[in-house]
Amino acid sequence: MKIALAQINQSIGKIEENRIKIFDFAKKAKEKNADIIIFPEFVVTGGYSNDLFKNKDFIITEFKATEVMTSHIPIYTIAGVISNDKLNQNITNAVAFFSDSNSMKVVASKNNLNDGDFNDLKYFKFSGFSNVFKFCEKNIACVIADSADSVSKNIEKASWLGIDIVIVLSCSPYYKGKIEEIKNIIKESAKENSVDVAYVNMLGGNDGYVFDGQSLYVDKNGNLKAVGNFLEEGLTIFDTDGQDIEDKYIDKNKELYDVLVLGLRDYIKKNNFKKCVLGISGGIDSALTLAIAVDAIGAENVLGVLMPSKYTSKESVDCALELCKNLNVQTKTIPINDIYNIYINQLTPFFDGKAKDLTEENLQARIRSNILMSLSNKFGYFVLCTCNKSEDAVGYSTLYGDATGGYAPISDLYKKEVYELSKYRNTISKIIPEFIINRAPTAELRENQKDSDSLPEYDILDDILIKILDNKLTYSQIIESGVEKEVLDKVWKLLCISEYKRRQSPVGTKVSKSAFLRDISLPVSNGYIWTPMREKDLCQKSTM
Amino acid sequence: MKIALAQINQSIGKIEENRIKIFDFAKKAKEKNADIIIFPEFVVTGGYSNDLFKNKDFIITEFKATEVMTSHIPIYTIAGVISNDKLNQNITNAVAFFSDSNSMKVVASKNNLNDGDFNDLKYFKFSGFSNVFKFCEKNIACVIADSADSVSKNIEKASWLGIDIVIVLSCSPYYKGKIEEIKNIIKESAKENSVDVAYVNMLGGNDGYVFDGQSLYVDKNGNLKAVGNFLEEGLTIFDTDGQDIEDKYIDKNKELYDVLVLGLRDYIKKNNFKKCVLGISGGIDSALTLAIAVDAIGAENVLGVLMPSKYTSKESVDCALELCKNLNVQTKTIPINDIYNIYINQLTPFFDGKAKDLTEENLQARIRSNILMSLSNKFGYFVLCTCNKSEDAVGYSTLYGDATGGYAPISDLYKKEVYELSKYRNTISKIIPEFIINRAPTAELRENQKDSDSLPEYDILDDILIKILDNKLTYSQIIESGVEKEVLDKVWKLLCISEYKRRQSPVGTKVSKSAFLRDISLPVSNGYIWTPMREKDLCQKSTM
Repeated sequence: MKIALAQINQSIGKIEENRIKIFDFAKKAKEKNADIIIFPEFVVTGGYSNDLFKNKDFIITEFKATEVMTSHIPIYTIAGVISNDKLNQNITNAVAFFSDSNSMKVVASKNNLNDGDFNDLKYFKFSGFSNVFKFCEKNIACVIADSADSVSKNIEKASWLGIDIVIVLSCSPYYKGKIEEIKNIIKESAKENSVDVAYVNMLGGNDGYVFDGQSLYVDKNGNLKAVGNFLEEGLTIFDTDGQDIEDKYIDKNKELYDVLVLGLRDYIKKNNFKKCVLGISGGIDSALTLAIAVDAIGAENVLGVLMPSKYTSKESVDCALELCKNLNVQTKTIPINDIYNIYINQLTPFFDGKAKDLTEENLQARIRSNILMSLSNKFGYFVLCTCNKSEDAVGYSTLYGDATGGYAPISDLYKKEVYELSKYRNTISKIIPEFIINRAPTAELRENQKDSDSLPEYDILDDILIKILDNKLTYSQIIESGVEKEVLDKVWKLLCISEYKRRQSPVGTKVSKSAFLRDISLPVSNGYIWTPMREKDLCQKSTM
Repeated sequence: MKIALAQINQSIGKIEENRIKIFDFAKKAKEKNADIIIFPEFVVTGGYSNDLFKNKDFIITEFKATEVMTSHIPIYTIAGVISNDKLNQNITNAVAFFSDSNSMKVVASKNNLNDGDFNDLKYFKFSGFSNVFKFCEKNIACVIADSADSVSKNIEKASWLGIDIVIVLSCSPYYKGKIEEIKNIIKESAKENSVDVAYVNMLGGNDGYVFDGQSLYVDKNGNLKAVGNFLEEGLTIFDTDGQDIEDKYIDKNKELYDVLVLGLRDYIKKNNFKKCVLGISGGIDSALTLAIAVDAIGAENVLGVLMPSKYTSKESVDCALELCKNLNVQTKTIPINDIYNIYINQLTPFFDGKAKDLTEENLQARIRSNILMSLSNKFGYFVLCTCNKSEDAVGYSTLYGDATGGYAPISDLYKKEVYELSKYRNTISKIIPEFIINRAPTAELRENQKDSDSLPEYDILDDILIKILDNKLTYSQIIESGVEKEVLDKVWKLLCISEYKRRQSPVGTKVSKSAFLRDISLPVSNGYIWTPMREKDLCQKSTM
């Protein structure tokens, strides 16, 4: 049997465009003599449509699109669709089989509605569909599953006596380690249950999720028969009786970087923007963000803005310019001193003689945001936010200052990952000046400021954050691992009191299983922050 | 039997303070000779604790608090606690019965984990506990339920043969109409199933939810035996064999207004702030927000800031000052012209000769935000955002401008409700000048600007929004109801393309079943916006 796995990048809600692309893929598969084509979960609506699933017009439009597919699709097709259970007026997240008799048959519906990143339970019911069907002399069962655990359980459940192939449809986003995890789970499951497994996942960035595709086919001995090119849209056509293929290894940094590029590119494109603008400080975060932006939409579509103040060092300006030059990015330099001075003149009479503090630092960051937003409004540029996960975790950013923008490409990267990816990007072409990589991190909002004045050194901070957020260690486990109590208490407190800031952050690309607001959601009014605290005068040093 | 219903305002995560308050309530109930006291769902942790439920230290602290309750609580007690299922390492959202033998027995666990506003499924398992117990010669069954539908179903399910009383624990937030809905459902259910029903709900504001308490007791004939005072913390003690009481009617506007006051008060208090600051424009939104703030934390803790520009009319300034004077609120006046002019001077060379547009309008709003945030940073004031739901729906606000702040007290009120509540507040004391209520809404960001230049008149806009968001009508149903196609298309498009802005909005008090981000969550990259559009040149007129 010749199967075409469709690795397809769909847009949420663009039902007609999505349908046309499905037909294009189907035609190509037919031309290449495939017997059947397999599309992922939600291929008509795009994923994930959230409350559009509650909109009756939207659902009816989806039904119409699948009707057209039923009567015109030129090849046997398996696809993730919305189905309606006329009896109960419910909709189900389903798999349909389109055959040559111009008929569409629902052959499965998602059973684990609490699986994965999205709230299927809010929209769908499980209808108990599970129709095995015969095709090319093979008994085939379909399932929808998102998490690795659910993929494994669903393959096991679907592997009745006599089943030859289990087809897994998915619309599940990327996280670090997922590629290997899913591949291994599928190989193991295929072997254990002695069935062939086809896996087809959605591709593309949507709302900060990157669906990583990685369609593949494994035979019942656990041997790889086909795998889609990483993050590339297209068809993978192969013969189930063909040769085993060798598994390709993807460098971890390349994998992560490419996901970030696709996440940003699709977000900009799918929100109908073309160009973007960001502040270039001469620091590592804006450097990496700039590189990602250039790789995503081309240097000609990116504008770098330098907004020096009296605290900005000459090295910062030089580095920023060198970086932009290396990337062929156009720059504008708009100093903020005059604007800052007027604010201070106007506000000082209202400050009751109080000394300089965070107020003046935050003001600079907010002026910069205003300038970027003005360029955005005037020219339709999309503003990029350069905040990273370590900063977001402890609130080390200025609300309505540097924490602003339409999208935050690196907001799910720990600071150490920002360094790793910057070094990785430099191995492709040396674009980020060494000085930027080697300098001590600083916000340059006052004389000789360093991030480590307010925060633990980033290697210590990242270590603690990973233990809390990713490894879910308990307080005493973290202490036993060698973290100082004072430092841990401070980080925990900052983590809790920064939730209000994270709630107002731009959307960013999720690359972990511990992304803020998506995977980790703390209460804002969080009384528990005080419980492990003993130090009376531990006060928030981070900028607000 | 003498029962004490505890209407208690708990804080998320303040486990020790919560436990102490539970003891205070229990002691008072004992002193007043109650036989038993009933506390709501999550009474030890506070509601809703989100990912703190994933924190093992947090759960262990909760267990310790219930251990202390087990050995020391001075009266028979029913309370919502976290329980652990040692077998499966799961935690359950449970009801415990504390008896005089220093024992705690889990008598129920929440079965409908997908019920209500929160994601119980992420944290809890259903353990099938359902132990009927005998107390004062009565057979008692307990359930946890949040939505009206679930309350009704759970009472029915718990009403086995021989059950005398069903106790319903809840931690469910307010929405307009809920008070009547829950009361009626309980009366009906009690009658239909011929059981007495005790209902105890959490009280207080947390993270923008207002838990409305309204503890009550209805006998098996549907007669009201007890009801807690609306939004007041305290005990309601009564005899189950006592007289029926008369149901109190609460004026709809008073109900809504009081919920908004409590929501803001608790948010400020529970986040450890004391004072707040907001911009007073002379418009209706800031007027109502100011009144709510004064009623929440007292005039002495509120600062009103006037930030006139050259587009600000004399009437606006006069009205703003009169309003603040009526409310005894201190004001500061900080004109923005000089700051604005410097920005324009600095930015004009980068604007490539482009004409004035939204850029200049948004800039003014952002300067005002910067000023408020500076006062916030310098004095520790909490900034209030004055945006309403109609504006949020169509994006008629400036991102990082007027759409900023720590909390948005009226963000779930349609514009027409802003008027209704302003008029209601004036019936208590005439504080909002008539001119503010009667003037045409304007952002005053350019000469002679009116909101209706960019938007449909608010009565039309609100009508459409209610049809889409609350009544969930289809496109054709809305057209049939008499809405013009062009206007509907425009509103639908604005609704969709404003999602990115809503994602960055401050938390506000939920008062409806259609609160943005809580009840209604649209995708940001939403291709469906174009589908019902036909007019090519329909462009976004709202400010960004």
